Amino acid sequence: MLNPDNLHCDGKRLIDRLERLGAVGRLGDGSCCRLALTDEDRQGRDLVVAWMRELGLEVRVDRVGNIIALRPGLEDLAPVMTGSHIDTVATGGQYDGCLGVLAGLEAVQVLNDQGVTTRRPLAVAVFSNEEGVRYQPDMTGSLVYAGGLPVEEALALVGTDRSRFGAELERIGYAGTMAPGAVVPHAFVELHIEQGPVLDSTGGELGAVADLQGIAWREVILRGSANHAGTTPMHLRRDAGHGAARVACFVRDLALELGGVGTVGSLRLSPNLINVIAREAILTVDQRHTDEGRLREAERRLEVFLQELAAGEGLELATRRLARFEPVRFDPGVVEVIEQAAAGLGRPIRRMTSGAGQDAQMLARICPSAMIFVPSIGGISHNPLERTEPRHLQLGADVLLRTLLTLTA
Amino acid sequence: MLNPDNLHCDGKRLIDRLERLGAVGRLGDGSCCRLALTDEDRQGRDLVVAWMRELGLEVRVDRVGNIIALRPGLEDLAPVMTGSHIDTVATGGQYDGCLGVLAGLEAVQVLNDQGVTTRRPLAVAVFSNEEGVRYQPDMTGSLVYAGGLPVEEALALVGTDRSRFGAELERIGYAGTMAPGAVVPHAFVELHIEQGPVLDSTGGELGAVADLQGIAWREVILRGSANHAGTTPMHLRRDAGHGAARVACFVRDLALELGGVGTVGSLRLSPNLINVIAREAILTVDQRHTDEGRLREAERRLEVFLQELAAGEGLELATRRLARFEPVRFDPGVVEVIEQAAAGLGRPIRRMTSGAGQDAQMLARICPSAMIFVPSIGGISHNPLERTEPRHLQLGADVLLRTLLTLTA
Repeated sequence: MLNPDNLHCDGKRLIDRLERLGAVGRLGDGSCCRLALTDEDRQGRDLVVAWMRELGLEVRVDRVGNIIALRPGLEDLAPVMTGSHIDTVATGGQYDGCLGVLAGLEAVQVLNDQGVTTRRPLAVAVFSNEEGVRYQPDMTGSLVYAGGLPVEEALALVGTDRSRFGAELERIGYAGTMAPGAVVPHAFVELHIEQGPVLDSTGGELGAVADLQGIAWREVILRGSANHAGTTPMHLRRDAGHGAARVACFVRDLALELGGVGTVGSLRLSPNLINVIAREAILTVDQRHTDEGRLREAERRLEVFLQELAAGEGLELATRRLARFEPVRFDPGVVEVIEQAAAGLGRPIRRMTSGAGQDAQMLARICPSAMIFVPSIGGISHNPLERTEPRHLQLGADVLLRTLLTLTA
Repeated sequence: MLNPDNLHCDGKRLIDRLERLGAVGRLGDGSCCRLALTDEDRQGRDLVVAWMRELGLEVRVDRVGNIIALRPGLEDLAPVMTGSHIDTVATGGQYDGCLGVLAGLEAVQVLNDQGVTTRRPLAVAVFSNEEGVRYQPDMTGSLVYAGGLPVEEALALVGTDRSRFGAELERIGYAGTMAPGAVVPHAFVELHIEQGPVLDSTGGELGAVADLQGIAWREVILRGSANHAGTTPMHLRRDAGHGAARVACFVRDLALELGGVGTVGSLRLSPNLINVIAREAILTVDQRHTDEGRLREAERRLEVFLQELAAGEGLELATRRLARFEPVRFDPGVVEVIEQAAAGLGRPIRRMTSGAGQDAQMLARICPSAMIFVPSIGGISHNPLERTEPRHLQLGADVLLRTLLTLTA
């Protein structure tokens, strides 16, 4: 009888693979650049696929380039799937999605080494274009896999460099034949770095991710009148810059009131001169909440505020929705399995929310899913300074291994 | 005995000269580009000097390129001076400073045509580099003329194009020999477009400018931490963008409370991305007031606000003073002469403030000075759309003529 207490991941081996994969597309500043479907992405895929084959996995590639590596179980049941993505932003870190993929391979290796065959098959997935830097929408591969975007639409996506998703996929040799979603998982669990400061700032080691924030992105354009900052009395101004500042303050205050987060991260003024009242301001509003009702309330309150602001300040207003995703509630059963896995290791685990979008949110559409978080030092990610303590990498992989053992049992 | 009621400027002739000067350095969009001490500035100067000579004026050029054209009086007394500047911003209008210079020439022509010799001499001045686009500080010529900047320092100024003021002055042939300020005026009066909306928005035709706002310019740099807009809880943020927005709102509220004007016209965020909390914000604050005490109060309150904001939001703060001029109170006697000139024409005139910097503010250091304003349609200036109704140009020139007659009497 299998005693999971005897099974542990090899943290050194995991870190060695993270570093070898991180070296692919490494830039001078230490960051990783493996934008989806580039030559660097291919090199990264080739390395991971080679490891998968070394581990005896059956590697399948679907029509949008998702890689599904299967380990047979005792019974021919739906597999338990883990994994993530290995594409990066332009100056990414070496953990991000890679940890979820390589910890999945590490789990397979431990099972291989111990001669363990699980009841259900196990699958390790690498999803295409999670970051969405080169092709929008982001999380393309997992979105298609979960049936949220037709294959043909994904293949027709045009990148920021005018390339076509389908053509690039062919070029790098990862246009597979499997229908996305053909292997429907029994459950999905993803290990990921938190990419935020919650665990690190509270001394936490592990997170069981119970939900994922909904996102509302909006572009706001305010147009006023460019006038002389010295000669135009305050009451005769139509100051787009002041309008933008009011929006930014409102977005912050609203998030403090309703919960969730709200950010104006991008703001451009024209003509942007010291002594000229701004004619135009273009800004973005990023609102997120775990509760769809609250997120709708935040959007509605913003809209009312913008209308009143524009009317009161004599500004023209134009807004455009850039993105909208509903919040995701992960499967409570899978979350509980994760928490029990941590308890089995005698480690505390914090039930938490994912602030970022994740492949797991797409998989949650087709099977019970949840995530495991490990701390990001300083909350930093998408940055060469992204780092997670080796002991937390080991711990996260051990919790993943035990979770997979329970789910495949 | 001279009856000034019989003397009127020729509006058509004035406008003709404005258009001919405006054609020098004209760009495709209709704007004027005669940056100080460029070839276009030389062409403009050559044209104006030719007109001065045609009018029989004695043209002197001082060491910083100020042009002083003298018309003798009956007595060898200090002259009454009028004038302004003919340099423009990169995309300027054709009125701005040119109106003050050419209305002075128009006054001379009327006196010539009517055979009038005033008791005091009359002088029409063209001051170098009022706009300050190419060389800072702005109003260089009048500042030096009034003793506010040593000649050698002005000649050593390095332009935004790395050129030297003195070398460029030599190159265009306007490095004169007269000591700046050698001709000390008995009084100075400058006709200028308002460059603001006050007259136009109230149906006013004329302004007697009694004072000029003091200016405090400051650059503010706020530094926080660039973090993920989704994963970073509100209470763990150090959001430089939000800090900048708070500053912009405060500057506006403060101007409404203390009077004067306050503007954040320039604001740059880094990295300026929709889903990243801003690491850095660089913004400018432009505060102006006619009362030095109030201006100091505004600066002090801003400083306190910035310190509290930085401490409260965990931001690093750096500020830098970019410019500071005290308010100018023009000579009440000259203002009254201007008002009487308007009354003599049966036209209402509004006592007002100049929001912009002007050569007259420098001359006010060495002689009784004031200004006449005519409306700017829509308050627009420094723009090819800058425009003043022909009847207002005529009216302004007539008020100038009568004011000069009184002051030279």
